[in-house]
Amino acid sequence: MAGCLFCTFAAGDVPSHAVLDTPEVFAFLDHRPLFPGHTLVVPRAHVVTLLDLDDPTRDVLFARVQEVTDAVQQATGSKGSFVAMNNVVSQSVPHLHVHVVPRNPKDGLRGFFWPRTKYPSEQAMAEQAAAIRACLAG
Amino acid sequence: MAGCLFCTFAAGDVPSHAVLDTPEVFAFLDHRPLFPGHTLVVPRAHVVTLLDLDDPTRDVLFARVQEVTDAVQQATGSKGSFVAMNNVVSQSVPHLHVHVVPRNPKDGLRGFFWPRTKYPSEQAMAEQAAAIRACLAG
Repeated sequence: MAGCLFCTFAAGDVPSHAVLDTPEVFAFLDHRPLFPGHTLVVPRAHVVTLLDLDDPTRDVLFARVQEVTDAVQQATGSKGSFVAMNNVVSQSVPHLHVHVVPRNPKDGLRGFFWPRTKYPSEQAMAEQAAAIRACLAG
Repeated sequence: MAGCLFCTFAAGDVPSHAVLDTPEVFAFLDHRPLFPGHTLVVPRAHVVTLLDLDDPTRDVLFARVQEVTDAVQQATGSKGSFVAMNNVVSQSVPHLHVHVVPRNPKDGLRGFFWPRTKYPSEQAMAEQAAAIRACLAG
């Protein structure tokens, strides 16, 4: 899409440090990584969020995400990884991108140390689950 | 697997607030959510990380993640979402689980405000990309 940074990377119109270049999926290094090796995996087609992916593109995207995760862990000698996407909120570029971040114990990433909350009651939790089930059914 | 909390949830041996219950995939509310509606989507089979998923299970898991993300956003009236998994490091339960977290602007989540770093040089970045490409090729 005209004006989309990640489309210009995928098209080769703007140089990037590519790690994967296939007909459906493109992957490149994030230029401001959480850790070196932090890679962004994107569908070549301009898709904004996870919800906008059609079935075949979703299947091939996550197949490539799995391969890239393995390669990033191997190439950086990391024990693990963090694989994540932001949809709309905190999404810096409105072209779906899956972050693949190498992780090691005590690496300082504050990933899931965000403040957690709790439900006020079991009843509130049951109602929340029912509301999600209803949306899935509808 | 015996002794795995998420296997006991999926089997119904320990009660959970389920939102999705299919032959391949199970989803339930995180009991200490980042925000209400925070859901964990797991393969019913005991699989430890993203790298351990076989192709058919990976395809169906992310198809269900997409549906659950849509439902969580709808049910909570959220503008967006955060979809993430930890592999090994920061992985509290060694059974693959995809976090689906509803997000709204200014909700206070410190998601990608972690400190970012940068590569010392373009050369270093090019070498990092080449190392990942080599692992993908190998």
